[in-house]
Amino acid sequence: MLVVRNIAEICTGRVGPIPLNDELPITRLRNSAIGIEGDTIAWIQGDDPANWSDNARVIDANGGCVIPGLIDCHTHTVFAGTREDEYVQRAQGLSYAEIARRGGGIKNSVDAVRECSVDQLVEQALPRLQRMLALGVTTVEIKSGYGLTVEDEFKMLRAVKRLNELQPIELIGTYLAAHTTPREFEGNPDGFLDLVLDANVLDQIREEGLAEFADVFCETTAFNVEQSRRFLTTCADAGLTPRVHADQITQIGASKLAAEVGATSADHLERIDDESINAMRDAETVAVLLPACSFYLGVEQAPARRIIDAGLPVAIATDFNPGSSVVESLPLTMSIACSQMGMTPAQTLIATTANAAAVLKRENKVGAIKEGMQADLTILEVPTIEQMCYFAGRNCTKTVIKKGHVV
Amino acid sequence: MLVVRNIAEICTGRVGPIPLNDELPITRLRNSAIGIEGDTIAWIQGDDPANWSDNARVIDANGGCVIPGLIDCHTHTVFAGTREDEYVQRAQGLSYAEIARRGGGIKNSVDAVRECSVDQLVEQALPRLQRMLALGVTTVEIKSGYGLTVEDEFKMLRAVKRLNELQPIELIGTYLAAHTTPREFEGNPDGFLDLVLDANVLDQIREEGLAEFADVFCETTAFNVEQSRRFLTTCADAGLTPRVHADQITQIGASKLAAEVGATSADHLERIDDESINAMRDAETVAVLLPACSFYLGVEQAPARRIIDAGLPVAIATDFNPGSSVVESLPLTMSIACSQMGMTPAQTLIATTANAAAVLKRENKVGAIKEGMQADLTILEVPTIEQMCYFAGRNCTKTVIKKGHVV
Repeated sequence: MLVVRNIAEICTGRVGPIPLNDELPITRLRNSAIGIEGDTIAWIQGDDPANWSDNARVIDANGGCVIPGLIDCHTHTVFAGTREDEYVQRAQGLSYAEIARRGGGIKNSVDAVRECSVDQLVEQALPRLQRMLALGVTTVEIKSGYGLTVEDEFKMLRAVKRLNELQPIELIGTYLAAHTTPREFEGNPDGFLDLVLDANVLDQIREEGLAEFADVFCETTAFNVEQSRRFLTTCADAGLTPRVHADQITQIGASKLAAEVGATSADHLERIDDESINAMRDAETVAVLLPACSFYLGVEQAPARRIIDAGLPVAIATDFNPGSSVVESLPLTMSIACSQMGMTPAQTLIATTANAAAVLKRENKVGAIKEGMQADLTILEVPTIEQMCYFAGRNCTKTVIKKGHVV
Repeated sequence: MLVVRNIAEICTGRVGPIPLNDELPITRLRNSAIGIEGDTIAWIQGDDPANWSDNARVIDANGGCVIPGLIDCHTHTVFAGTREDEYVQRAQGLSYAEIARRGGGIKNSVDAVRECSVDQLVEQALPRLQRMLALGVTTVEIKSGYGLTVEDEFKMLRAVKRLNELQPIELIGTYLAAHTTPREFEGNPDGFLDLVLDANVLDQIREEGLAEFADVFCETTAFNVEQSRRFLTTCADAGLTPRVHADQITQIGASKLAAEVGATSADHLERIDDESINAMRDAETVAVLLPACSFYLGVEQAPARRIIDAGLPVAIATDFNPGSSVVESLPLTMSIACSQMGMTPAQTLIATTANAAAVLKRENKVGAIKEGMQADLTILEVPTIEQMCYFAGRNCTKTVIKKGHVV
C-alpha cells in the first residue's frame, strides 16, 4: 500500500471525452489522501492516518495539488538531428516555402532518420522522454513518419517499442507513413501509398505490436482527401484506429474525413469551419489542438473557444517535433493554451488527461483519479492546477507516480 | 585556476550596448578552453591541456556551448502571494479594466506585500532566484513598487539586499515607488510623489545602498510625463540612475522622456513610434523589450525588428512579476523573442548579456566573455546558442559559474 497524503487538492477529472463548455469540468477534493494498491488507485479519502495501516508507505504531498499523470497524445518524439537553421531563417522572416526551397522541412528529418539505427534513435529519444517524465507526463503517443520507406518506418516504430521497455512513460505507437511523399515517389503519392499499405506491411505491424493508430497528413501539400481516406480505411481494416492531421494550413475537408472514418481525433484544426465542427461532434471525434506549434511558428492559433463552445471535446498536445514545435513541455503547452487560446487551466487539465486518454482509447484506464483506475499521478509543488498554468514555463512537478511506482 | 575545457563554441559577445542590425553581433570561438583566476577570466585559448598547469581544476563542458551568465535586467522578483484568479479571468475573456474592477491588478500585490515582513518576502523570493540560477541567469535587477509607502518600499529593497547575501545571483535594486498611485493618495499622485521623493527618503536609500536605479510607470493609468520627469530627475539628483516603463499601453511620450533625462533604458515599448526610437538612439538609451509579458497577456509584441533596424540597441528581460508576466525563465523569454518578435537567437543572446549589462551600467564587468571580465559563465548541454533557443522551454543549462565559482 502506497499512500499520498497532505494533498491540498485532488483534481479527479472524469472519464473522457468531456465537452469543455460545462461549468465545472473537474471535481476538486480538498485535504485528501490517495491509497494505491499495486498499480491501481484503491481509495480516495480524507487525510487521516487512522484510515490506513501502519505498513503503508506514505508520501507527503506537502500541501501540493495532485493531478492525473499528464498524457501527451500527439508527438513526434522519435527523430534524429535538429533543425535550428530553419528556426533562425523563420526568425529572419523567411517563408515556409522559401525555407523548404533551401532544403528545410520534414524531408530534412527524413534524411537524418534514415541514417540512424534503431539504437541511435532510441539513444536520442531517451533523454527527451526523461525530461517529459520530470514534467509530470506519464503517457505519450509517438508517430513514425520520418522514415517513409517500409524499412525506415518499421525502424521508427521499433524504436518506440524499445523505448517503452527502457523507461516508465507508457508509449503508444502511431503509423504515420502518410506524413509526406518521399522524394523517391515525387509526383506519385498513390504509388507511395501502395507501398506503405501493402498487406504484409500492415500484418507485420500488427504481429510485432508496433502501432495502435494510423495517421495521415491530409493537406494540399501532402495527401488529398481521397488518398487520406484510402490510407486510413485500409489501415483500419488492419486494426489501426484512424487519426488525422487536419485543417492546419488549408480547409480541404480533412476533419470531416476524420469524422467520416471514425477517427478518434482530428489534430491541428487551425482552419476548421463550423460544418466540420458539427461533423466531428456527431461522430464523437475529439479535437486535438496543438497550441505550442502555432506559438512556435508564430502563426494564428486554432479557434479553441469556438470549438469548445460548440460542445466538441478538446484535447491538447505538444506536437513535439524537430521542425514546427520543438516544445517537449506539456505544462508549458497548457500555459500557451491559456494565454493564447483563451482556455482556462481547468479546461487544459481535462484536455491533457481525460480527453487525451480518450483519443488514445485509454479513457477507462488513465486520465482520471478514480478508484480502480491505473495509479498514474503527478504531485505538484503548487496547491492548484490554476497555479501550475499561471507559473508559465516553470516545472511545478514534485513527484511522479506511474503504475503505482514513484519514478 | 579553474579551467573549462572541451567547449564546442564560446559566444564571446562584445561589450555593450550593441546595435543588433550588424551582420554578426557575436564572435564564436570553436573547440576552446577558458581559464579562470579567482573571480576573473584569465585567458581564452585552444582546448589543449598542455596550456594549463596540472593543479588546475578542470570542468569538462562535454562539447557544450559556453555563453556569458545571462542578465535579467527588468524584474519584479520580490513579491508576495499569487494572482492566478486574474489569469483565469483573462483566459475567460475579461478585459484588464474589468479585472481591475473585480479587485485585480497591481494593488492586489501591494496589499500582499504590505502584510509581509522582510523575512517573509525573502523566503518567498529565494526559491524563485534558485530556479533562475539553474536556468543560467547570474545577474538580476529587482524593482520595488508593491509597497507604495515609504516603509513598505524600504522593506522591499531591504529584501533585495538581504537576498543578495543569501544566494549567488548578483541582485541590483531599483526604486520603483512611482509604480502606481496607492489608494491612500487616489486622485493625488503629486502628493504621493512628495512623500516618496522626500530628501530624507532618498538619502536613506543611498546610505543603506538599497538601489542604484529609479523607475517610473509613465502611462495614462499611472504617472504622466510631467510627474514622471519630476520623479526621475529628483531621484537622479540623489544618485539613482533613471529608467522608465514606457509606451506599453499608450504613446504619451514616455520613451522620449527616457531619452531626455538620460535614462539607461526605456522598457516595454509596445507603442513606440519612430520619433521616440530616434530620440532614444541619439541619447544612447537602450530599448528593453519584454516579450514574455505580451505573450503572457496575449497582446501584440513590441516592434522589435523596427527598433533593431533603426540601429537602437535592444535588451530583453522577463519582466517576471505576479500579474502580467509570471515567467521566471529568461531562456524561454529568448525563445519567445525568436518566435514572436522575429529576433534571431544570436540577437537575443546579446540582448540578455552585453546590452542588459549596459542597462545596469555593468558592461565592463559582466555580459561578455573576455580576459579581465568577471567570470560569470553558463555552460549549455547543447553546442550552440541557436539550439538553446530552438529547444523552447527546455532548460539547456548544465553548469553555472558565478564570480569564478561553480554554483
